[in-house]
Amino acid sequence: MTLKFYYAPHTCSLASHIALEEAGADYEAIRLSFANEDQRKPGYLKINPKARVPALVTPRGVLTETPALLVYIAQSYPKAGLAPLDDPFALGEMQAFNSYLCSTVHIAHAHRMRFYRWADDPAAHEAMKKKVPQSVGEAFALIENGMLRGPWVMGDTYSICDMYLFTLAQWLEADSVDITKLPRVIDHRARMAARPIVQKVIAEETR
Amino acid sequence: MTLKFYYAPHTCSLASHIALEEAGADYEAIRLSFANEDQRKPGYLKINPKARVPALVTPRGVLTETPALLVYIAQSYPKAGLAPLDDPFALGEMQAFNSYLCSTVHIAHAHRMRFYRWADDPAAHEAMKKKVPQSVGEAFALIENGMLRGPWVMGDTYSICDMYLFTLAQWLEADSVDITKLPRVIDHRARMAARPIVQKVIAEETR
Repeated sequence: MTLKFYYAPHTCSLASHIALEEAGADYEAIRLSFANEDQRKPGYLKINPKARVPALVTPRGVLTETPALLVYIAQSYPKAGLAPLDDPFALGEMQAFNSYLCSTVHIAHAHRMRFYRWADDPAAHEAMKKKVPQSVGEAFALIENGMLRGPWVMGDTYSICDMYLFTLAQWLEADSVDITKLPRVIDHRARMAARPIVQKVIAEETR
Repeated sequence: MTLKFYYAPHTCSLASHIALEEAGADYEAIRLSFANEDQRKPGYLKINPKARVPALVTPRGVLTETPALLVYIAQSYPKAGLAPLDDPFALGEMQAFNSYLCSTVHIAHAHRMRFYRWADDPAAHEAMKKKVPQSVGEAFALIENGMLRGPWVMGDTYSICDMYLFTLAQWLEADSVDITKLPRVIDHRARMAARPIVQKVIAEETR
């Protein structure tokens, strides 16, 4: 059975979409429109009650959450060599990086547009939006100054971490982060954007 | 070489601490005091520049982030059977659960005491604190109504997910969540608290 991959353009689901394509997976990509609130419609809530993307429907059930999907894809298509699955320390480093993106970087960013999750007061929403350039900038500074080893996140080997970093780095300008302080992150983003598979996925998501 | 495990009481590092003990790992536990801001001192920042816990110093380097540590511990001590490492789908479900705890549940909770990460305005801090009972309550409602399969998170088999859920469930009362709506979560918490290994770890952390 073909995998069914639910995504929305301009969201973190891009990382798993690239991973599926890099892995050579047999999958069908299904686009949700966040503008239409597709993610809150009853049909999709049966697939993912969290009303989020990504979601991957497999023959055994549904998987969600980017860090989970990335390792699942790497483990399901081991020939693609997307993660060091049999090396607990190396996999641990990769998972630590992905977890940081998920729970610190993405969360800092989310305070610009999903502020209603954490406060009801409109004045608080404005205060949260105001801090995003700083909080996202500081989160990326740690990546710039050490976590991104170069040329790829984990060093010489391209991996699921690169797809995830590239995805969140799409939002830097919209978050008003000073990208002149992040030359290594921006160089990484440009090299990712030059990969034919990445170009194919982005063309598919935005056509 | 013995592992060195850095933790702080009453934080998410409890999950990895329990996992190390359940795995029978040879480790030294080193306590940080958040009241003393130990996590921001130069010596610790060399270990973890993110100024957070947990951090695990291994012979090959430092690992951070709870979801990463939990899988690392399970993979390093496979005889303990703490995760289905060779089953991509089952591991994916476990990682999805852990990622949800990390990036949704813990983050909702963090707006009660770490609000300064996401806004500077004191009025916004109050607005964030005010929403915590609702946002944490809604996040736990999904766990109560499906994600926690019972008797353990993943069903019949005790795993790293149970340690992590137990850890975050410590904070429900302080977050003013109505626990009468979470009978399955509270029953799970009580069964975890009855495990001798869990009692040993908590005694060590709070002595």
